[in-house]
Amino acid sequence: MHPHLATVDLAKAYRLLNHGPTVLVSARHAGVDNVMAAAWACVLDFAPPKLTVVLDKATRTRELIEHSGRFVIQVPTAAQLQLTEQVGNHSLKDEPDKLAKAGVQLFEQAGHDMPFVAGCSAWLACELIAEPHNQNTYDLFIGEVVGAWADDRVFNNGRWHFEDADPAWRSLHHVAGGHFYAIGEALKA
Amino acid sequence: MHPHLATVDLAKAYRLLNHGPTVLVSARHAGVDNVMAAAWACVLDFAPPKLTVVLDKATRTRELIEHSGRFVIQVPTAAQLQLTEQVGNHSLKDEPDKLAKAGVQLFEQAGHDMPFVAGCSAWLACELIAEPHNQNTYDLFIGEVVGAWADDRVFNNGRWHFEDADPAWRSLHHVAGGHFYAIGEALKA
Repeated sequence: MHPHLATVDLAKAYRLLNHGPTVLVSARHAGVDNVMAAAWACVLDFAPPKLTVVLDKATRTRELIEHSGRFVIQVPTAAQLQLTEQVGNHSLKDEPDKLAKAGVQLFEQAGHDMPFVAGCSAWLACELIAEPHNQNTYDLFIGEVVGAWADDRVFNNGRWHFEDADPAWRSLHHVAGGHFYAIGEALKA
Repeated sequence: MHPHLATVDLAKAYRLLNHGPTVLVSARHAGVDNVMAAAWACVLDFAPPKLTVVLDKATRTRELIEHSGRFVIQVPTAAQLQLTEQVGNHSLKDEPDKLAKAGVQLFEQAGHDMPFVAGCSAWLACELIAEPHNQNTYDLFIGEVVGAWADDRVFNNGRWHFEDADPAWRSLHHVAGGHFYAIGEALKA
């Protein structure tokens, strides 16, 4: 565990995703770890914090989640642009060394048997709330957030500080085909 | 209808929301129009295009949607920062002149009996896919996108052009309490 990884109060966990970043989804089952990218992840509730994520039936990560009942949603940074694109475009089913080739390094968090991707700005450990109809009909998965952490160089005191941090920390917002935007300037209404 | 409003191919409608902007949700029933802000909206599928949006039980807009079975999701701009914050923090239940006070101007689209908010960058007309369990348990609503349009000064040829347009066109990404980020620089993986 690195020195800048700070626990985020679960009551404020929604703030890690509220601005709509593209995320990395990771999961573990029976000794297999995998990571994929997903633009279709969204906050669902404040307390207890919940989120939704859309997971295509073709993905290995979905299979792991269906078996283990848990997953991590993490927020990749502009510095992880290529990594994010690569884990989104390659499948562990075809490439057993997918994670190594994409440069993914995993770390552990005590009490949570899931793989966490190093270098991200935020992590949300989730327990699957089984909703078979949503999963089968819409590929829609609901998770309850049971642990949240952020890198305190870009998220601290309950809020993002993209405007003060190195631009390499900016979140990624995918449009299509490798075309992303970084998050931009702060605006106060 | 203004001269810059261009139809978006339904196959590319997901691109209007893929980068995770905060949206405005509008609906009409029995002569009542309303508009609210929502950060919790997300793409659900490509074809036919579908999306999810979380609508609290306290909102008037939700009641309108439950009755009419349709709604518009639109993408507000940085120029609409105060408007977005205002329609997100005031209820038509308490303030019958909410829309006028927030400076909301509505327009019509032929064939779609819903109120569209002028000045946005993109609009997705949706038919509700009734899922009572999701609606009652999670406040989660699913819509099928049946029409999509964008302002061609910021979205054309199937993609956003935030990097070339006036910064006033940038999408808004709410974190909490009136603290937003605008979308930022383009990154190509």
